[in-house]
Amino acid sequence: MKIGIIGSGVVGQTVGVKLVALGHEVVIGTRDPNKLDEKKNMAGSLREWLVKTENKGRVGTFAEVVGHGEFLINATQGQISVDALKAGGAGDAGGKILIDIGNELDFSRGMPPRALATQDNCLGERIQQTFPNLKVVKTLNTVSAFVMVNPKGLNDGDHTIFVSGNDAGAKAEVSKLLGSFGWTDILDLGDISSARGPEMYMAIWIRFWGATGSGMINVKVVR
Amino acid sequence: MKIGIIGSGVVGQTVGVKLVALGHEVVIGTRDPNKLDEKKNMAGSLREWLVKTENKGRVGTFAEVVGHGEFLINATQGQISVDALKAGGAGDAGGKILIDIGNELDFSRGMPPRALATQDNCLGERIQQTFPNLKVVKTLNTVSAFVMVNPKGLNDGDHTIFVSGNDAGAKAEVSKLLGSFGWTDILDLGDISSARGPEMYMAIWIRFWGATGSGMINVKVVR
Repeated sequence: MKIGIIGSGVVGQTVGVKLVALGHEVVIGTRDPNKLDEKKNMAGSLREWLVKTENKGRVGTFAEVVGHGEFLINATQGQISVDALKAGGAGDAGGKILIDIGNELDFSRGMPPRALATQDNCLGERIQQTFPNLKVVKTLNTVSAFVMVNPKGLNDGDHTIFVSGNDAGAKAEVSKLLGSFGWTDILDLGDISSARGPEMYMAIWIRFWGATGSGMINVKVVR
Repeated sequence: MKIGIIGSGVVGQTVGVKLVALGHEVVIGTRDPNKLDEKKNMAGSLREWLVKTENKGRVGTFAEVVGHGEFLINATQGQISVDALKAGGAGDAGGKILIDIGNELDFSRGMPPRALATQDNCLGERIQQTFPNLKVVKTLNTVSAFVMVNPKGLNDGDHTIFVSGNDAGAKAEVSKLLGSFGWTDILDLGDISSARGPEMYMAIWIRFWGATGSGMINVKVVR
């Protein structure tokens, strides 16, 4: 599949390497694709990323990413996601599926960061409202980048990932992609308003991280 | 132990029955102890509760509860918790441990209810700030009343409960009590500010409930 990733920090890069390894045609987007040597948010440079993809991945502008992808992935920081998607022309992209991994985390008051999601401030909902043409599916925002693409690396994959979105077909497509990453316990939380749940959950995830000293964590929904 | 429970809805009643069964001296508090036949929030009347305790429990005013308990438990709805504790004179209760189980859930806009906790609206923190004499420990708010006192009834107890609070000794005491309920995986999230985590988590718990159709659910922190 042709997949476009908006955002080139640790999440975009890690998911990108995995998708390339799975055989997809991946373009990763950044504001200035000529700055290949700039170190990215919690990650290496995009020149290093290209090496990690064995030069099968490509780097492009946000607009190139949105034009390329049959599937789009938002891997930007939540505070800038809507602007980045606008810059890429996502409003004119037709009915593409957008996987939204974004979180609004505020590091400005020190550690631990503050998860800014509330009942009235949900990134997934805001993206869906801003781009009604897209089929937004919120997922993967509840785990660190390594766990996103290596669920089997934590307790043999016996833990849960969530999907939220208005379009059942899009959630099924995304669930298939999650399955190809190794996810087996995929829980459909409901329509895009249910994304408030996994976004507000980041407030406790951050405390799990602090309490365990590790980002290699997740929850299993026991039922 | 002498334990005082503020709040006589399903949480207060269920925890109360368990504590009596474990041999504790329990007084449960309600605004008007003479209204023994009034049906309580998602629970039966206090006259029925007394039968469930084999008449070993007692019903009292909030002030009687606060006076009686060596351990206090807030089992009121989050929106009224501070007022109920003030009515009971909790500010003059000295350095007692208060277990705070409260959640602020807004049912006024229909289902599912809205979890109102945010980084700037945390009930556990607000109670600690309002009553600096108390040793507030947030716990048990992340599961339904039945699971609180019957963790072994769900997947043999292989799931996690959280404690947050400023006083390490109080958290140890509360953890002992949780152990007597059957909890084995007790995760200390940090000081009382970490209660934002389990309070904001209610937004996803409510979606778990909707997705699974059951309140007999919890998460296991996989690490």
